[in-house]
Amino acid sequence: MIFSDTEFYYAYPDDIIKNIITLRDDEVKHIAKVMRHSEGDDVYITDGEGNIYNSIIKSITKNKIVAEYNKIYKQENSLQNITFYIPVLKSHDRLEFALEKCVELGITKFMLFDAAKGYKRGLKLDRLKKILLAAMKQSLRSYKPTITYINELTNIIEKNLNVNVFDQRATQSFFDYLSKNKKVVTTEKNNSFIFGPESGLTKNELDHFKGHTSYKLTNNRLRSETAIITAASLIANSLR
Amino acid sequence: MIFSDTEFYYAYPDDIIKNIITLRDDEVKHIAKVMRHSEGDDVYITDGEGNIYNSIIKSITKNKIVAEYNKIYKQENSLQNITFYIPVLKSHDRLEFALEKCVELGITKFMLFDAAKGYKRGLKLDRLKKILLAAMKQSLRSYKPTITYINELTNIIEKNLNVNVFDQRATQSFFDYLSKNKKVVTTEKNNSFIFGPESGLTKNELDHFKGHTSYKLTNNRLRSETAIITAASLIANSLR
Repeated sequence: MIFSDTEFYYAYPDDIIKNIITLRDDEVKHIAKVMRHSEGDDVYITDGEGNIYNSIIKSITKNKIVAEYNKIYKQENSLQNITFYIPVLKSHDRLEFALEKCVELGITKFMLFDAAKGYKRGLKLDRLKKILLAAMKQSLRSYKPTITYINELTNIIEKNLNVNVFDQRATQSFFDYLSKNKKVVTTEKNNSFIFGPESGLTKNELDHFKGHTSYKLTNNRLRSETAIITAASLIANSLR
Repeated sequence: MIFSDTEFYYAYPDDIIKNIITLRDDEVKHIAKVMRHSEGDDVYITDGEGNIYNSIIKSITKNKIVAEYNKIYKQENSLQNITFYIPVLKSHDRLEFALEKCVELGITKFMLFDAAKGYKRGLKLDRLKKILLAAMKQSLRSYKPTITYINELTNIIEKNLNVNVFDQRATQSFFDYLSKNKKVVTTEKNNSFIFGPESGLTKNELDHFKGHTSYKLTNNRLRSETAIITAASLIANSLR
């Protein structure tokens, strides 16, 4: 099923009991005030775990909406093995924009880090989580993105990561690689894509990941957020 | 020559006479105040027509900087036959962001239009031109982007346009098409890519272009600016 010309709403998985769904918080305002839905209306609700419930609104009160579903659709998370490691950028706007675009394109796992040569600043993780959830719904996807802050890249102790970095001077084009190896990217376990800040990753940061592969995007310099969105675009579009 | 870790400055072509270049306006401030360059410093200056002049600063005054060049590098505009037709979006920020990303990715010709089902609003073309020029310099490119406002898509009277549109329900994947036909996209004359607003293009708008080709990006819904950036990413990355 291809969804289009509709909206998705989000319910916590714990709020789905038998065929009854309770919607809370911002969702109540969005359904009742913004979209002006009434009791009896047909809506799509996702649990952020790949399920989409075609539901009828049963009751609307100030703090919650109760709906009953009659049909479930399942979406696959084709990019579930992919994690994007993104440096905290100097500009909040650019970071938020990059994350929003990645979610629209299907990336669901994000790790934020303070790059050695990056800009150190506070992070509003709660705000970012809201943006990610909104982007999921807006793009009619049903896997709730996760985002974690890991301080330094060299703190990663996970083994068996397949690590990919992007470098303007690399010889291997990422587009060509994807054209020839579509399935490798989406089926290999723990496929990590690590992006640098404007001033790049340090040798120490790169050396932390033995056997990483470097790919080129374009021949010219790209801003960090542009490289991030470009890589997500290529991965998402290579799927079929 | 691959440029990296440097800056480009812009000079009007008329301000390059023999081997002497005069820089004006914002460039003076940027070179002298922001980057704190002095007389004798080595800088790269572009005329926005594909030439990059390796130059020595000869004099800095309040309103102009004079430099002398000793070497010229030439860049190709691989996407010179491509025009992006972009609807005026409801959000200024999203429109500006999309344009900036497209320039970084190498698109140099933009036509803005008021989509039939789009949001009608004022446009600050001068501001957009500044953003485009800044993005050109920042991404170390040397073709000054052009942007024109054409009111309605159906006002286009140009013949022999090869028109491409994007549609979530199209059967042909743009990624697959590019993988197999890299050179067609960059060598065909007047290759136009037309993007819709959030609510889509009307039948009337589409019917205006006989024989357009529809491509799919991802299976899910994308915001307008995401579709624009995604298409630019794919085109730019398919180049080699």
